[in-house]
Amino acid sequence: VNRITITRAVMVANRVLRHCRGMAFREDTAVRPAAPDTYTATMSDRWDSVGGMPNGGYLLAVASRAIGNRLGRPDPVTVSGLFLRRGRHGPAMLRTEVLKSGKRFAFGSALLTQDGQPTVHAHAAFGDLGGERQQLFSAGSAPVLPDPEHCVDILGDSHIPGVSIIDRVEYRMPEMPGWVKGAPDGDPSAELWLRLRDGDTVDVYALPMVVDCMMPVVVDLGLSSTTVELTVHVRARPAPGWLACRVATRYVAGGLHEEDVEMWDSRGMLVAQSRQLAMLLG
Amino acid sequence: VNRITITRAVMVANRVLRHCRGMAFREDTAVRPAAPDTYTATMSDRWDSVGGMPNGGYLLAVASRAIGNRLGRPDPVTVSGLFLRRGRHGPAMLRTEVLKSGKRFAFGSALLTQDGQPTVHAHAAFGDLGGERQQLFSAGSAPVLPDPEHCVDILGDSHIPGVSIIDRVEYRMPEMPGWVKGAPDGDPSAELWLRLRDGDTVDVYALPMVVDCMMPVVVDLGLSSTTVELTVHVRARPAPGWLACRVATRYVAGGLHEEDVEMWDSRGMLVAQSRQLAMLLG
Repeated sequence: VNRITITRAVMVANRVLRHCRGMAFREDTAVRPAAPDTYTATMSDRWDSVGGMPNGGYLLAVASRAIGNRLGRPDPVTVSGLFLRRGRHGPAMLRTEVLKSGKRFAFGSALLTQDGQPTVHAHAAFGDLGGERQQLFSAGSAPVLPDPEHCVDILGDSHIPGVSIIDRVEYRMPEMPGWVKGAPDGDPSAELWLRLRDGDTVDVYALPMVVDCMMPVVVDLGLSSTTVELTVHVRARPAPGWLACRVATRYVAGGLHEEDVEMWDSRGMLVAQSRQLAMLLG
Repeated sequence: VNRITITRAVMVANRVLRHCRGMAFREDTAVRPAAPDTYTATMSDRWDSVGGMPNGGYLLAVASRAIGNRLGRPDPVTVSGLFLRRGRHGPAMLRTEVLKSGKRFAFGSALLTQDGQPTVHAHAAFGDLGGERQQLFSAGSAPVLPDPEHCVDILGDSHIPGVSIIDRVEYRMPEMPGWVKGAPDGDPSAELWLRLRDGDTVDVYALPMVVDCMMPVVVDLGLSSTTVELTVHVRARPAPGWLACRVATRYVAGGLHEEDVEMWDSRGMLVAQSRQLAMLLG
């Protein structure tokens, strides 16, 4: 067995793995070192939201991956992203900076550029979310929903041109929401189940994506919006399985609204809290 | 009247102004250009929180000022700060970067260093919050509190060594909270009035400070914490007068908690929403 044979075997194995269960997210957010502070990535067309452009959360997940690689810590604990312009499919460069490497947290930033144009700026604190996790206080709890099998796969039969993310993420609700039928119900909040359709576990890097992969909650008001800034706190490493999600906006004014998301894993543990500031469109 | 006389008159006038009503915040957050992308500032000892160190929100206000000066836009709309290490009194340098200058928003970042040590990293979207502000949806409202005159100035008679910020910010609550008397009530949430004691209006630059200038809400649980990350959305320019504030945490686990703040101005308008991730101490 010589070197070339091994290399070929690895290439074939990689090609097979690519078509296996649960590789899409890891593959499409992979970053490759190009210089001590620079990574390259390829923005896939599998995570597009309205307009056929890469979803903002997907871009933020790639930026988080670059920061995490640079810092060498396992878990993004808090990530904030600024969305500077629309992302595109194809190559991206990520210039990273180590801001501080401390005992409990390491801090870093990444500027994701495409064709030399800054697209997303992210900064983050990374740490280690493994080990014991003592809960001292809780004033909230996971959404109470019928089992996923008794809920509707709300976009399972939909084809929205350009919106490839609905082929990768599954959303289940007790009933079909009004906006899907063109009749928004006027209440910009929802509780739903969410998972990756390919069976992959939503990991700490996928959380910054999935908190942003639902339809903007203002669809319930017949409005649409786009993200200006998104902050996500990863509160624990998610267990495999469905995530129970809660999304709401409370204040839509001056052309802006916040959108708050909570995600709870199959153990009933809060795994992510996010808030974004979004700008109304149209 | 020669040049020296004019210069002297200006110096005297400045010295007088310094002791006038409402100059402290502007003076203590002033940034001076030192290079095209660099500003200097002097961290005052008038905004210290526990430990006799500059309050994190105060550092974030200075960083916001540097970004705003660099971008040349009037209002911070969303600012996120990472708190890398303790701030100190005295000189600070701010290296800024323009990330994008768009039609509606301009985006920038600032790294505040002291003695060459990165202390705070901030990134922000700036815009113009003047003009008409149409409210399309609201699911919340300002805290309902007795008039400030019928509330208690909870820290007015306190002297907490090193905590100079309580000489600059006034907090009024319907009743003295348990934690002031050493008996935390176990409910980590509060509603209160807040203003600057010198009569200065809390402007869009002071909001990133005041959302962080209350005691960590976990004092109600007998705990203390320090900020890791703070995001503030400035939702409108505040009117002069008291701010009605709501602060709460819902999840304290794994040594971390979020802290959400809403601030409403004297017209009853939501002016700021903030969320921070804080780390428990001790």
